Amino acid sequence: MLWQDILKIRKSSPLIHNITNYVVMNTTANALLAIGASPVMAHAAEEVVEITGLAQALVLNIGTLSTPWIEAMLKAGKEAHRRRIPVVLDPVGCGATQFRTDTAQKLIHELRPAVIRGNASEIRALISSGAATKGVDSLHTPDEVRNDAIALSHAAGCVVSVSGSIDLIVEGNQLIRIANGHPLMTKVTGMGCTASALTGAFLAVNESPLSAAAHAMAVMGIAGELAAERAVGPGSFQMHFLDVLYGLSETDMTQNLKIRYSC
Amino acid sequence: MLWQDILKIRKSSPLIHNITNYVVMNTTANALLAIGASPVMAHAAEEVVEITGLAQALVLNIGTLSTPWIEAMLKAGKEAHRRRIPVVLDPVGCGATQFRTDTAQKLIHELRPAVIRGNASEIRALISSGAATKGVDSLHTPDEVRNDAIALSHAAGCVVSVSGSIDLIVEGNQLIRIANGHPLMTKVTGMGCTASALTGAFLAVNESPLSAAAHAMAVMGIAGELAAERAVGPGSFQMHFLDVLYGLSETDMTQNLKIRYSC
Amino acid sequence: MLWQDILKIRKSSPLIHNITNYVVMNTTANALLAIGASPVMAHAAEEVVEITGLAQALVLNIGTLSTPWIEAMLKAGKEAHRRRIPVVLDPVGCGATQFRTDTAQKLIHELRPAVIRGNASEIRALISSGAATKGVDSLHTPDEVRNDAIALSHAAGCVVSVSGSIDLIVEGNQLIRIANGHPLMTKVTGMGCTASALTGAFLAVNESPLSAAAHAMAVMGIAGELAAERAVGPGSFQMHFLDVLYGLSETDMTQNLKIRYSC
Repeated sequence: MLWQDILKIRKSSPLIHNITNYVVMNTTANALLAIGASPVMAHAAEEVVEITGLAQALVLNIGTLSTPWIEAMLKAGKEAHRRRIPVVLDPVGCGATQFRTDTAQKLIHELRPAVIRGNASEIRALISSGAATKGVDSLHTPDEVRNDAIALSHAAGCVVSVSGSIDLIVEGNQLIRIANGHPLMTKVTGMGCTASALTGAFLAVNESPLSAAAHAMAVMGIAGELAAERAVGPGSFQMHFLDVLYGLSETDMTQNLKIRYSC
Repeated sequence: MLWQDILKIRKSSPLIHNITNYVVMNTTANALLAIGASPVMAHAAEEVVEITGLAQALVLNIGTLSTPWIEAMLKAGKEAHRRRIPVVLDPVGCGATQFRTDTAQKLIHELRPAVIRGNASEIRALISSGAATKGVDSLHTPDEVRNDAIALSHAAGCVVSVSGSIDLIVEGNQLIRIANGHPLMTKVTGMGCTASALTGAFLAVNESPLSAAAHAMAVMGIAGELAAERAVGPGSFQMHFLDVLYGLSETDMTQNLKIRYSC
Repeated sequence: MLWQDILKIRKSSPLIHNITNYVVMNTTANALLAIGASPVMAHAAEEVVEITGLAQALVLNIGTLSTPWIEAMLKAGKEAHRRRIPVVLDPVGCGATQFRTDTAQKLIHELRPAVIRGNASEIRALISSGAATKGVDSLHTPDEVRNDAIALSHAAGCVVSVSGSIDLIVEGNQLIRIANGHPLMTKVTGMGCTASALTGAFLAVNESPLSAAAHAMAVMGIAGELAAERAVGPGSFQMHFLDVLYGLSETDMTQNLKIRYSC
């Protein structure tokens, strides 16, 4: 099923509309191309409705947020909702500032994304406004992460995908854990943003947001492991990561996947 | 003549003013440095006139367009026109939205660029507002591409450079075809934008916009082939592409160039 | 002492708030991660005060300046001043336009940075508004560079760090010269911006701005040399540079450091 999704992405080359942060635009566009999708980055209020209308998924990322971009995200997201195009929200740095937390909550409330993908701190901030985060990093117990993700999935009525040493993907009380990945991934900027972009690509070819989100995290984790095997440090890791994403084989996936379903 | 242009760029290190999209700023700056030019990225209305005044070419790229950037492009372009500094226009995603098509047409009308460089869909959109494009990709027959390019060259009074599996560079009824390049180039974001930036560098040292545009596409194609020989996938391709651009020799060019002139 | 600073950065992972230019956001974030720091990029007036309040250093870079970003820099800088968080200013392209020169001078006057880090042309422009620069490049005699740096250090009451074939770091009449580095560093965009970002990381763990600025330049120069040994051109240089930064050992530093103190 995961491998079928990859083949579908390669064959149909879905257009993924990204309204994302400046830091990762290049790397997420390249990751989408490497997996076989077609990225488009556009944020002008004058054109986002048309771009979203051409796309098979919309990815919203608040990493370098500013007011005109929020307006664009709302316009694009409403068009996506109207056309039943799936939306991914990446609440980067949520909890670090009131502006980010408020914006993420507003986007969730008004756009009803199919998947929210963040780290444990960001997910925590979305269910309790009292939490403090240190920028974009996080440290939480597995139980806390699970409880937060379940709470947010219920509250927002969507899939919640939490990246960490073990990724957790939750829809209501259904849980999927993925134990792939490599510590070098935390030494490269935008790996989480790439996970969100790939989630958009999988949503474009898979009707189940839970499966799509899990498949994206599985691909991230396995590609991360294979890239880390060849890498000397974070510079060569980035290069190998794109090469691996581009060349993924069915064997790469089946031999390495560490997935566990529960509820 | 192509090799002479490369030597001139390396020797004179022309300053190329880029008002371009967020996705490719880093990669196009690095490509300009690798070929021997000096890139400058600046978009504030307060300073673009001064920056353009220092430059030997101006490259306008509408990839992540917004209203303040259009104003900057117009200001910079008018200064370039006044000082006879050549302008390249890259109409990224033109045809995908009315905003992009209108903006590209306005820029052509008001600034009279020396070269318009795009893919077949973008060129098509500039001569017929009824065409639909799927984001930034395209599929057209060679005859359609040729007819569109000739029509736009006549209508806009400038060189039209169309990238594709065979690049086509047109001025009026003069045609140059370049059959260099590699499919991996379509798996890396911003290769078209890099072609436009390099077109700016060649315009800075060659008075013929037709030759300059063709030389830029030849360098792109040959560097792409040499990089692809060494690459495992799109990640390593990007690295080798910059290394190859930096180290291009006369033999690299003469042994690999596949160019055909006609009218 | 230099090695101790690197260990402190790796251990405490200081949060570095960057309000920087679009071209280098990705590469400077990755360089900060590779040395062991935590980068955050944020520029919205609504949130910069909160972000700076979480950070251990603030890095301001005027590379792709526009009016809303100046407002953000002033807000963030005033919060940094209030909380005694050290500020680095990188006056990219200063002297090329009145807008950049005026903005850099205003930022120095209002924010009193701990370190100003630029190239010789940019430093010159800050002490005499009559100088002309060719974009971001420079050519000055060693004596001119020294006199300019001393003059600016006295006038601005801060450390001045001038990158060049020999880096010069000045506080009042104290001078440190670092003869590390490699010509390939000038063929990659944003190496100066990376130097400024790393200066922020060292300021976060070292109370002496003079030492912090010198340590950042020493790390840049040595990592540049080691990366160049392995590189074919500017593409592979970038990859190796991040790998080297990530893997720096005490021996790398002690065996390669070329530093000279004088007054």
